Amino acid sequence: MRYVLGIDIGGTNLVVGAVSEDGRRILGLESEPTGAPQGADHVIERIVAMAARTIAAARAAEVDVEILGVGIGSPGPLNTKSGVVLLTPNLGWVDMPVRDRIATRLDLPAALDNDANCAMAGEWWVGAAQGARHAVTFTLGTGIGGGIVVDGKLLHGASDVAAEIGHITIETNGRRCGCGNDGCLEAYASGPAIARRAVEAIEAGADSSLQGIAAGDLTRITAQTVYQAAAAGDPLALEVVQDTAKYLGVGVANLINILNPEVVVICGGVTQAGDRLFTPLRREVTRRAFRPAVQACRIVPGALPGTAGVVGAAKVFLDAHR
Amino acid sequence: MRYVLGIDIGGTNLVVGAVSEDGRRILGLESEPTGAPQGADHVIERIVAMAARTIAAARAAEVDVEILGVGIGSPGPLNTKSGVVLLTPNLGWVDMPVRDRIATRLDLPAALDNDANCAMAGEWWVGAAQGARHAVTFTLGTGIGGGIVVDGKLLHGASDVAAEIGHITIETNGRRCGCGNDGCLEAYASGPAIARRAVEAIEAGADSSLQGIAAGDLTRITAQTVYQAAAAGDPLALEVVQDTAKYLGVGVANLINILNPEVVVICGGVTQAGDRLFTPLRREVTRRAFRPAVQACRIVPGALPGTAGVVGAAKVFLDAHR
Repeated sequence: MRYVLGIDIGGTNLVVGAVSEDGRRILGLESEPTGAPQGADHVIERIVAMAARTIAAARAAEVDVEILGVGIGSPGPLNTKSGVVLLTPNLGWVDMPVRDRIATRLDLPAALDNDANCAMAGEWWVGAAQGARHAVTFTLGTGIGGGIVVDGKLLHGASDVAAEIGHITIETNGRRCGCGNDGCLEAYASGPAIARRAVEAIEAGADSSLQGIAAGDLTRITAQTVYQAAAAGDPLALEVVQDTAKYLGVGVANLINILNPEVVVICGGVTQAGDRLFTPLRREVTRRAFRPAVQACRIVPGALPGTAGVVGAAKVFLDAHR
Repeated sequence: MRYVLGIDIGGTNLVVGAVSEDGRRILGLESEPTGAPQGADHVIERIVAMAARTIAAARAAEVDVEILGVGIGSPGPLNTKSGVVLLTPNLGWVDMPVRDRIATRLDLPAALDNDANCAMAGEWWVGAAQGARHAVTFTLGTGIGGGIVVDGKLLHGASDVAAEIGHITIETNGRRCGCGNDGCLEAYASGPAIARRAVEAIEAGADSSLQGIAAGDLTRITAQTVYQAAAAGDPLALEVVQDTAKYLGVGVANLINILNPEVVVICGGVTQAGDRLFTPLRREVTRRAFRPAVQACRIVPGALPGTAGVVGAAKVFLDAHR
């Protein structure tokens, strides 16, 4: 059977897998810390070693495995045509020809796209947005990434920086964002922003089981601990999740009013909160977006947690090479 | 030569013209008050009478005029496939089959689209967005309409309500908008919102030449009087224009971060303010949007003031009928 290597380069982890040509099967899936501080050469070598093991695992699992090429998802901004990552603060890369370096080392053709675009491509190909003509993905993590499908095609825009939906302003004079702007969605609903809002509430005197978890060191509070405390019924954590749903709802409503998609997919750890997130999120969207646009649109969690980026990177390769 | 009738149905005025097949020439342009309170039948009859005069004027101006059909722009929401306007509060229409009624009365094939989409189509065809693969139009008037071109095609979305960019939230807990949402761009930067901000400042004690113009009746202050006072150097009016640029800049930056277009076109009376609007607008966008997206994008006034809707309606017909 024919496979494509999917490589998802994250600031924290590298994920590699061999994705079948129909997107339904993944062989030899591997995840490792990125180790960005060791430098770009180390990261490339780690990717090449993981890819070799993935190919070996795929060949061990199945006879007649043919590897067509490599799809690579990376934080951006990047140039999809030249295959060069222009700048990634998390990885410390500047003008890094990551596509050609990996292609040369593996002796396989390769394609490069933004990591959040890859997640959208994966969800659209075989996940929660399958069959949609117009779709949007919000990927919530350290930042908030986005992917947009218009008329069945990933939207790249004039210079490969479309779908930066974490950086739409939802409060004109709001919280300062890491990008330098004030009031970005990311400054309210990313993982660190969720933790920060919980910490601020505790510092302002709120009572919460999070204080016990933090054991005197509030920097130990992460988005993950907030979700866990919310699942256990902690009132402050529930309020933080509710507020997250509200802010995210503003962002989702904006995208629905602009693009009128059939589906909005929410990806990332925050979806663990389940209905505690999605019920107030849908309520906020219904309140804010145009009724015929809301009625046309499902808001759903991603169907490929942990693998959307790898699967979508493979899809990006297939689209670029046929 | 071959022409298409363009009909721009507004809440205030009807505009009709015969647009040449290449979009470069308009014959028999007419404008009349819509007279919506007299009812839908009267409006349709007025459109038909205007169209007949326009056709006669075109035939008087040129030999061998062939009218291919009719393009109609109307406030929405509407269904481009069925040609039915679902609801227009300004006109009082509900489920109005405007395309087929006009087509029958004129005995010509017709096509229908949203008025703001038509403005985008006109600017994209022969105006300020000509040649762009990705473009956005903001049309500022009583409301704020929008049009989006992606990959050289008007974006309609899943249910013909894409590009409602007047109703993106820019202040999560901001001013109440006519649509029921809080903090919409339209609640800050539409004509009535511009007038309202000036009136509020005067009521709060600000000194302005607008008080003389209003002669004791602040309801006489309109966006138009604010632009005029700003052009004459009135400090309060200048501040209102500056704030308008800032709010509009938030909206434009959001669209640039989402769509990464080559051009954003600003249409409507507000563009009379010229550099007093565009200089702070561009500054705000540069501050807020991603640098590679800002660098790829021109922000310009519309090139077809008063006729973008008619020209674009003709283009919508041509696209639907070949």
